[in-house]
Amino acid sequence: MKTRQVILARRPVGMPTTDDFRIDEVELESPGEGDIVVENLCMSVDPYMRGRMVDRKSYTPPFQIGEALTGGAIGRVVESNDPNVPVGAHVESSFGWREAFVAPGGQVRALGNLEAPASAYLGVLGMPGMTAYVGLLEVGALKQDDVVFVSGAAGAVGSAAGQIARLKGCRTIGSAGGPEKVRHLTDDLGFDHAFDYREGNLEDAIRAGAPNGIDLYFDNVGGEHLQAALNCMNPHGRIALCGSISGYNAVDPEPGPNNLGMAVRMQLRLEGFIVSSFGHLRHAFQRDMTDWVTSGELKYQETVFDGLDSASDAFIGLFTGANTGKMVVNLG
Amino acid sequence: MKTRQVILARRPVGMPTTDDFRIDEVELESPGEGDIVVENLCMSVDPYMRGRMVDRKSYTPPFQIGEALTGGAIGRVVESNDPNVPVGAHVESSFGWREAFVAPGGQVRALGNLEAPASAYLGVLGMPGMTAYVGLLEVGALKQDDVVFVSGAAGAVGSAAGQIARLKGCRTIGSAGGPEKVRHLTDDLGFDHAFDYREGNLEDAIRAGAPNGIDLYFDNVGGEHLQAALNCMNPHGRIALCGSISGYNAVDPEPGPNNLGMAVRMQLRLEGFIVSSFGHLRHAFQRDMTDWVTSGELKYQETVFDGLDSASDAFIGLFTGANTGKMVVNLG
Repeated sequence: MKTRQVILARRPVGMPTTDDFRIDEVELESPGEGDIVVENLCMSVDPYMRGRMVDRKSYTPPFQIGEALTGGAIGRVVESNDPNVPVGAHVESSFGWREAFVAPGGQVRALGNLEAPASAYLGVLGMPGMTAYVGLLEVGALKQDDVVFVSGAAGAVGSAAGQIARLKGCRTIGSAGGPEKVRHLTDDLGFDHAFDYREGNLEDAIRAGAPNGIDLYFDNVGGEHLQAALNCMNPHGRIALCGSISGYNAVDPEPGPNNLGMAVRMQLRLEGFIVSSFGHLRHAFQRDMTDWVTSGELKYQETVFDGLDSASDAFIGLFTGANTGKMVVNLG
Repeated sequence: MKTRQVILARRPVGMPTTDDFRIDEVELESPGEGDIVVENLCMSVDPYMRGRMVDRKSYTPPFQIGEALTGGAIGRVVESNDPNVPVGAHVESSFGWREAFVAPGGQVRALGNLEAPASAYLGVLGMPGMTAYVGLLEVGALKQDDVVFVSGAAGAVGSAAGQIARLKGCRTIGSAGGPEKVRHLTDDLGFDHAFDYREGNLEDAIRAGAPNGIDLYFDNVGGEHLQAALNCMNPHGRIALCGSISGYNAVDPEPGPNNLGMAVRMQLRLEGFIVSSFGHLRHAFQRDMTDWVTSGELKYQETVFDGLDSASDAFIGLFTGANTGKMVVNLG
């Protein structure tokens, strides 16, 4: 059995291009004792993967040039030497960026009966959804009556974070790129206020939605968003630092916020986090999020690219605002 | 009875100059019911006061032009209409920058029997000492085996913070300006490693003292220090943001650290704090710090300027590195 897989051809400099990637076809090994063979149905591209394309110290080792990329994927078992993961089971794995793979059964997570379409387990019911959940509730320590600001609020993480805040009864404002996404936030997702970060002054836009200031800022963007939000924080405010997509493709480091003095004067807490450190909350996340999604209280949207050949375009699209909600590559 | 007092003549632009201040002589009101008259023995100048000279939103209202400045002072009661604060009592107040004052007895704090020279209650046993104590133990959540880095470590706050870390058994490194201060940190105060931030590369200097990284950074300086320290932090490290003296006199805001992405990747917590929010720890601070100081386990140094006329020079000297330890103005 063969599979096609996406290889990191070279490290991107600045905005990635399709030339940074190539597709190879390889013969899969035969499954050994305890192994399973999985055909992927869909795979994830996520902003954090840009960081793994850089050769530096981080929470996960960098991708290696000439090797297949990895990332979240949902697949179906087509051959099994592991009785715990039988043929036909849906599994989540980190063996994305390829159409099929062979791995020990213990290296995938069986999903049981799907309560939503398979791709939802890459998004709202998967890593991005859990990132929103732990970032808001645990790192951000959401409190009743908090005013919450979410940047990149039309993305996979941001749209979940904002809706969780709303479901917890908090006034929620969000930023997104372009009028359609802004309308999506208020009309479809129930944000109290949303604005287009490409228009006008960021700080003014935040204050228009949060005239009494922000208590919790869920930062997906960094850069100018973080600087503007710092100026709007209430005393003892919290900033959950989830990532800073604005700087992921910067060739030279962007200057940081010039107003960190606000953190002292307003006694703010800024805390970076990685969802994989919060495994102890997985059960609570799955219970709550499945309830919210199946009841329709929390909505999600996907932008779907079709086929492995579109994977690099889908990935690059994350940085040009091509997605509303989760960016998914369909492989089924 | 008359007093001389220091007036904010105009708001400093950049580095303060003596022309930003003037001294007026005024007649004190007669003490009314419940009032006391106090002659100050010594007064404090502290870096945070620079912030109060700027007209902006902060945790304390800005100083007003044409009005007497305020700040910590230790004095002795010379007249009293408050039986709780009798003549002869030593009191701590916020009525510094003047030689004498009249105030309700309830607006000062009686010190009881002094267990150290009066000026120590402006420093190691006062606000700066408590800032070090709560910043390190509460905000920084000091843990056994932490490697601790303190910037501005020869100052009033930094020298106390570093010594508390040492007393708690932690490896402690510090930065200061100039070889004499560096020697003071290692030879007198027991820092494990110290370096002159004016020499060489900051990040290299930190790594030389903390080859395995930093767990807790007590930041008195901000700016380049913060950026360098961010690159040296261990996963789940904590940064107590106490102030950023490097930027206090900047006319235009200095760019912030361009590597806040480290906070995400290393899951760091940066937290700003103001000592006045930690009144619930005052008793514990006074107990511990008095023990450490009277036993000689924790040392402190003072740089003393003499007389109210020297107050503005003493204040300006905070930003030129004129002080080792607490800067005090003697008024006795």
